[in-house]
Amino acid sequence: MTKSRAEAFSDGVFAVAATLLVFNLVDPKAGSGLAGQLISEWPSYAAYAISFSTIVVIWVNHHAVTDSIERFDRRLLFINGLLLMTVAVVPFPTGLLAHYLQAGHDQTTAAVAYGLTMTTMGIAFSGFNLYARRFRRAMVPLDWLAFSTGLLLWPIATLAAFVSVGVALALYAFIVLFYVAMPILRENRPLPATSALGGPNPLTLGSPRAAEPNGRDLGEDA
Amino acid sequence: MTKSRAEAFSDGVFAVAATLLVFNLVDPKAGSGLAGQLISEWPSYAAYAISFSTIVVIWVNHHAVTDSIERFDRRLLFINGLLLMTVAVVPFPTGLLAHYLQAGHDQTTAAVAYGLTMTTMGIAFSGFNLYARRFRRAMVPLDWLAFSTGLLLWPIATLAAFVSVGVALALYAFIVLFYVAMPILRENRPLPATSALGGPNPLTLGSPRAAEPNGRDLGEDA
Amino acid sequence: MTKSRAEAFSDGVFAVAATLLVFNLVDPKAGSGLAGQLISEWPSYAAYAISFSTIVVIWVNHHAVTDSIERFDRRLLFINGLLLMTVAVVPFPTGLLAHYLQAGHDQTTAAVAYGLTMTTMGIAFSGFNLYARRFRRAMVPLDWLAFSTGLLLWPIATLAAFVSVGVALALYAFIVLFYVAMPILRENRPLPATSALGGPNPLTLGSPRAAEPNGRDLGEDA
Amino acid sequence: MTKSRAEAFSDGVFAVAATLLVFNLVDPKAGSGLAGQLISEWPSYAAYAISFSTIVVIWVNHHAVTDSIERFDRRLLFINGLLLMTVAVVPFPTGLLAHYLQAGHDQTTAAVAYGLTMTTMGIAFSGFNLYARRFRRAMVPLDWLAFSTGLLLWPIATLAAFVSVGVALALYAFIVLFYVAMPILRENRPLPATSALGGPNPLTLGSPRAAEPNGRDLGEDA
Repeated sequence: MTKSRAEAFSDGVFAVAATLLVFNLVDPKAGSGLAGQLISEWPSYAAYAISFSTIVVIWVNHHAVTDSIERFDRRLLFINGLLLMTVAVVPFPTGLLAHYLQAGHDQTTAAVAYGLTMTTMGIAFSGFNLYARRFRRAMVPLDWLAFSTGLLLWPIATLAAFVSVGVALALYAFIVLFYVAMPILRENRPLPATSALGGPNPLTLGSPRAAEPNGRDLGEDA
Repeated sequence: MTKSRAEAFSDGVFAVAATLLVFNLVDPKAGSGLAGQLISEWPSYAAYAISFSTIVVIWVNHHAVTDSIERFDRRLLFINGLLLMTVAVVPFPTGLLAHYLQAGHDQTTAAVAYGLTMTTMGIAFSGFNLYARRFRRAMVPLDWLAFSTGLLLWPIATLAAFVSVGVALALYAFIVLFYVAMPILRENRPLPATSALGGPNPLTLGSPRAAEPNGRDLGEDA
Repeated sequence: MTKSRAEAFSDGVFAVAATLLVFNLVDPKAGSGLAGQLISEWPSYAAYAISFSTIVVIWVNHHAVTDSIERFDRRLLFINGLLLMTVAVVPFPTGLLAHYLQAGHDQTTAAVAYGLTMTTMGIAFSGFNLYARRFRRAMVPLDWLAFSTGLLLWPIATLAAFVSVGVALALYAFIVLFYVAMPILRENRPLPATSALGGPNPLTLGSPRAAEPNGRDLGEDA
Repeated sequence: MTKSRAEAFSDGVFAVAATLLVFNLVDPKAGSGLAGQLISEWPSYAAYAISFSTIVVIWVNHHAVTDSIERFDRRLLFINGLLLMTVAVVPFPTGLLAHYLQAGHDQTTAAVAYGLTMTTMGIAFSGFNLYARRFRRAMVPLDWLAFSTGLLLWPIATLAAFVSVGVALALYAFIVLFYVAMPILRENRPLPATSALGGPNPLTLGSPRAAEPNGRDLGEDA
């Protein structure tokens, strides 16, 4: 019960934060020449896409963690609240990035503010992930690659913004792609030891390993 | 578990995106003559109604797809995320349409931007629908009429906007009505082969086929 | 499954529409004298309270209807979508009311726009309620008092706004209070015929009829 | 059923209200010097953090109350609606606080408006908590410390704002910290009488009392 309501509240915050990102696009209402204006606004579309994807990635990983545990205690509820506080704030630096990339000044500040938010969110997620491990249904080793990537790359991207905003943005996009692609690539890898248990769905077409026979991949990404 | 949380997150994004459409109406606060102003704003009400209905239609069809499958894998979660990214952006072109239809210039650009969003959403939904088929509970043939209508008509309406904004808007409205009316008309059609299985609810009054005896209609619209 | 997701989507729209009402309050950022400004904004607090309560009342009654039925068909999903479209628009006339009551002009137009929205919502709810009855779990007579009150009083209040904005507002508030108070008063009334079935919870203190022994009251308000 | 939908609606309002707080941050779009502007906006970050945490605390306690009861009656639904009306309004005084702390005038009025909102929310929550007790699954004594703290300290902080805005803010932050820390400290306290029933999870590492063996702590905070 505790767990399902914690998930419902979390899903709500993730969904609202992601959907509010659209307000960073609602600008051009001045004069004519709308087509040119909409095209010149491409940085706000890029910022929207990166932030929306990042929230989806964090939501997928949040869901993998809560799926793997039996319950929340009070502490986990509040650590979760801290994590959600960093997720709900994402529309703010996204708006800064969208605005200042186009404005042509203060781009470094905006990219650093974005990176600091992501770094804080990464730290909050890692804390949530580590603390939640004590309520695991089964002993599973920590996935160090997934755990470290965000924790290391978000601060590196933030520092990179002082040198080159373009490199920072590329890194922000790379981190999202990494978290999308990594578990999918792993699903395609042959898993000899476990393939006998809970084999692929006979209805599965086209991919020999589209199924997740043991749920391990879903439970371990950070 | 994976599936129910994916549904909860999706329902959240659909609900918030639909409800945020109201912000495209909150404009008239200048001077007096409110009645005339509210009447002259009719394009924003039309845009609101078409976009809200479109999101409801996509939600109903999303729900039909997820109802028919057993689970999500990682890939489906991210394809779903892409779909939601296009749904959450709908308030933006809706606002453009509402504003520029009334402003009297740049109407073509606004109608094209609207159509491009809908086309992208249609493609994302089709990808979601096709990929999800591998997790179906039962083998069901693809409903080609429903699958093709949006995929074909949204780009055609977008192109039509270059010729006539009115025709484009009529097509946007037609697509919504098609997806509302088609499954309802089908429910009223006699289904000789399956009417013996799971017959109509004895409480059902007025319509001989208000019940969905085999869930086929619900599961197959795109 | 269909029903639970229809409820989840509906709950989302109700919750977001109610919470967005707060934006009609976020105005005073000019100059000093905040205290006086906040006090002079009392019409926006009244509009917030009436609209929030109205959405809660409609949500409670929506929930009573869906609780009493076994499932949704396609038609009911779309009638529900129409109802939600009128619920999601409530922040718009609420904002008009809040603004023009204070502005000192166009008050009649704002109160009429508010009443037309409520009347439309009332009609949509009645349609939802009537159509949903064919999926009832048990045959229950329609509650004519609850069914008629909104359908009659919202249009009457709208017409009254042409004569007196104050009377219209009083009626909008009265309708909410009626739907809050009526089922509670009924719960306190002795129900001799049904009190034997599913009697009151032994933990219930202070009120002999706080329990809803047969769910009839909950299922029948419009 | 009634209960789960009341929770879903409530979770939605809590999640949306918390996420809308971000709009009090989306300001700086004028000229250059973004870094300095962002730093000078620290009061809006503090207001965001306090309000977000307060909503999370009220949500956790709301969830503890509904977890401990068997069902909602109509009255509890409407008392819950009143509570949600005060939760949904939190972004308004938070915006006042964020704006006027930085503006350098009307700080007292903003801090008093914030305190009055919190006081009203505290009263609504206490009413919800007390009325809900009649639907308890088990007889549990009221937790007077938790029950009194908000009811006493929010009005005291509001009055303190007339003397010192800084003291009022410190008290608002203290109340949140109290409700986060108190149940966690209690979980660490040895509970000799109940430790035999439902002992700690064998997977629990690092803390001897991270588990909640009897659910009592979760059920009793106000």
